[in-house]
Amino acid sequence: MAERKADIGLIGLAVMGENLVMNIESKGFTAAVYNRTVEKVDRFTEGRAKGKNIIGCHSLEELIGALKAPRKVFLMIRAGQAVDDMIEQLIPLLSPGDVIIDGGNSHFPDTDRRTKYVESKGLLYIGTGVSGGEEGALKGPSMMPGGSPAAWPLVKPIFQSICAKAPDGSPCCDWVGEGGAGHFVKMVHNGIEYGDMQLICEVYQLMRDGLGMDNEEMQEVFAAWNKTELESYLIEITRDILGHKEADGRYTVDIILDAAGQKGTGKWTCVSALDSGVPLTLISEAVFARCLSSIKSERVSASAIYPHARVPFEGSKDEMIEVLRKALYASKIVSYAQGYALMRAAASEYGWNLNYGGIALMWRGGCIIRSVFLGKIKEAFERDPALSNLLCDGYFASVIGELLPSWRKAASWAVLSGIPAPAITAALSYFDGYTTDRLPANLLQAQRDYFGAHTYERVDVPRGQFFHTDWTGHGGNTASTGYTV
Amino acid sequence: MAERKADIGLIGLAVMGENLVMNIESKGFTAAVYNRTVEKVDRFTEGRAKGKNIIGCHSLEELIGALKAPRKVFLMIRAGQAVDDMIEQLIPLLSPGDVIIDGGNSHFPDTDRRTKYVESKGLLYIGTGVSGGEEGALKGPSMMPGGSPAAWPLVKPIFQSICAKAPDGSPCCDWVGEGGAGHFVKMVHNGIEYGDMQLICEVYQLMRDGLGMDNEEMQEVFAAWNKTELESYLIEITRDILGHKEADGRYTVDIILDAAGQKGTGKWTCVSALDSGVPLTLISEAVFARCLSSIKSERVSASAIYPHARVPFEGSKDEMIEVLRKALYASKIVSYAQGYALMRAAASEYGWNLNYGGIALMWRGGCIIRSVFLGKIKEAFERDPALSNLLCDGYFASVIGELLPSWRKAASWAVLSGIPAPAITAALSYFDGYTTDRLPANLLQAQRDYFGAHTYERVDVPRGQFFHTDWTGHGGNTASTGYTV
Repeated sequence: MAERKADIGLIGLAVMGENLVMNIESKGFTAAVYNRTVEKVDRFTEGRAKGKNIIGCHSLEELIGALKAPRKVFLMIRAGQAVDDMIEQLIPLLSPGDVIIDGGNSHFPDTDRRTKYVESKGLLYIGTGVSGGEEGALKGPSMMPGGSPAAWPLVKPIFQSICAKAPDGSPCCDWVGEGGAGHFVKMVHNGIEYGDMQLICEVYQLMRDGLGMDNEEMQEVFAAWNKTELESYLIEITRDILGHKEADGRYTVDIILDAAGQKGTGKWTCVSALDSGVPLTLISEAVFARCLSSIKSERVSASAIYPHARVPFEGSKDEMIEVLRKALYASKIVSYAQGYALMRAAASEYGWNLNYGGIALMWRGGCIIRSVFLGKIKEAFERDPALSNLLCDGYFASVIGELLPSWRKAASWAVLSGIPAPAITAALSYFDGYTTDRLPANLLQAQRDYFGAHTYERVDVPRGQFFHTDWTGHGGNTASTGYTV
Repeated sequence: MAERKADIGLIGLAVMGENLVMNIESKGFTAAVYNRTVEKVDRFTEGRAKGKNIIGCHSLEELIGALKAPRKVFLMIRAGQAVDDMIEQLIPLLSPGDVIIDGGNSHFPDTDRRTKYVESKGLLYIGTGVSGGEEGALKGPSMMPGGSPAAWPLVKPIFQSICAKAPDGSPCCDWVGEGGAGHFVKMVHNGIEYGDMQLICEVYQLMRDGLGMDNEEMQEVFAAWNKTELESYLIEITRDILGHKEADGRYTVDIILDAAGQKGTGKWTCVSALDSGVPLTLISEAVFARCLSSIKSERVSASAIYPHARVPFEGSKDEMIEVLRKALYASKIVSYAQGYALMRAAASEYGWNLNYGGIALMWRGGCIIRSVFLGKIKEAFERDPALSNLLCDGYFASVIGELLPSWRKAASWAVLSGIPAPAITAALSYFDGYTTDRLPANLLQAQRDYFGAHTYERVDVPRGQFFHTDWTGHGGNTASTGYTV
């Protein structure tokens, strides 16, 4: 056993780590594993990993000693300080050219910093997004690696073996870019996941509370939708969730508390959008919807102050279901349009040369947001790699054109019936704003100039020239310089 | 002249600084002034400040030498590194017990840090919000001071003399709290200002593009609204802006480019809300609306791809105007409810003992968001200082009840007619979510548990217990620990 050397080492045997190791081993690689609580190592090697080419190690030294050079150490540990601590412990044990890989949900600026730091020690670094949850980790996740370019050829054979494959067979993993680019793209992926989930929840609530449908009916609807353009993992699991029953016959979904957590990458995506000045309204609403869900007792109190008088739905239920399907699809297009606009802004800010079609391909399989729809996005960026916004692609323009009346109808129905559909309405507002040549920001600029002498540009002279009006006739002539509102 | 000592020194003679000095002097105080570009000092003392009790200084040493002890040095300089640099320059010149005051739009964590740092040098520190734009600075701004509690008695006489006064005569300035509390409250004020401005812009666009009204008609509407519950500075200046003409007779508002900037405190407010997990959807939409306005050329291109077919409005224009007024008022209540919820969360996080009614009073005069409405908020917090959300106050509940049908009608009309009203619809979605006892987050939790073993709480057992379902029947039994989505 001392002779056998592993192709890769993995640290951290929580569910994702364990499954990833099983996946790696199943592709013909030998993996060495270590976990801080070392009992987990034994439980694993004597359990699921028994008889596999998996070497259990009880110390970092043992783990590093078990690896072929150049060593590849894959961290599947909690994002944050733990990653920095582990890097510090690993550096003295590794040799020049060895690779540390962080597969957790690290914040991309941390990955940027760690890449530089680890490189300064003569080692290589990869921060990779890994999406697909526990099942994806086991059967093939979507992987989004960035970091030290020189590390990519070293890990590529393993990564592209274990990752998911798109329906055409291509691996859902390719090099994203330098520094934090991989974790940035993973962050946006997660933000989009927040949005996709929120949209499904909204149409679920509109069906449940607006159309008065039961779980069985809704399960049928999601099953049918999964045979349309909406075909995707999240629609599929929603279908299955709605059919899942407890031992006592009750539907599981009905006994789950309506209070969701948020603390991670969805929030980061919104902050990044605010920093870059890119409207990311749908994902923001999705994050805030989770916050709102979590204050359950406040909502229960408020619902007593404002009892919702539910008006029974009149009209064709089947028609409204199709209206909701179209609203969901249109809103989803906006969500991806916003997410891609954010990636474009970040790429320009950080100097990454992102391959937008390639990113859609990486998300095409394995990950939580995998869908047929991503194939259409890939095609749009193949038609025009410099596409400024998905909404400007010819294919999506014709799709939106067809969906628009239903989208408006669904949003209007939600608004009138008192069922919150924040993401669907935010998506529509964004669409209407993005396609409006003359927004009311002229008034806003006038207000800012009125009270703060912030100056404004004019429609009748080239941009870049700033004007100030003495609106009241008794202001000073001093220009505002140090203040921005 | 060498004998005369000043009550306060002010550094930074941009528009706000100059006006603040004129204000201070007009209240019977003597001020010493300094500006990095010293020509500005002479221009000021030989211009507007001529014959006033204002001492021009050409160096920091001269400025400090001109002050009575304990010295008070008011910085009106660009927020950011410049403040830190100035603090470093001032520390060796000041004596124990002297006070450095930052009146810029500093980010509250910076003020927190600077308070501790300056105190460690034996000095006192105040970070104060100053709102009211150039006119407010001159005639009486709203001031929100926080920092070293021991500094408050030293500056209180000056601050409460120069600040605005509420209609009942009380000063719109009082101690907010330790460290960064003052700048935090100012930040939320600015976020709310973003929201108020966006709401006005939305009804303006609905009238302009939806009802086809001209500037004169809209000016009349805002003039009339300013005699209702909406009476406020921003409605007032909107009325005046709409009537303002260029020398050639064109309306000024029509020649202003519809592209607004955002980079400051509005964004911080949203980030703070995301960090605290407080839904702040309206202000976020307002910030993102500015971002969207700024990509003017993209919008112009997109408007050609999706031409908006404006359907001429049918029905009573007067009725719809009243519907819009009510929608604006209801949305505004939500915006303040969200802003106050954020302050409550931050107070608990940072250990500030905020006086919510007092904050409403500070905003009641002088500042950009001053309004009659703030008096109602003050009353609500007087009725219940622990009020969890403005929407739960009896007065606001009855107001909302009366506004609700119009609010829904306005939102629905916007959605159907293709005129973006992101803040109005976001406000309504929030209201509908906040007042819903059972949101669809049960499905979301099921999804998270399905793909990531994130676990969920149940409706039939007390909170704090977490359950996991093996949805597919073939997942592992390892619990998810290191991952949050």
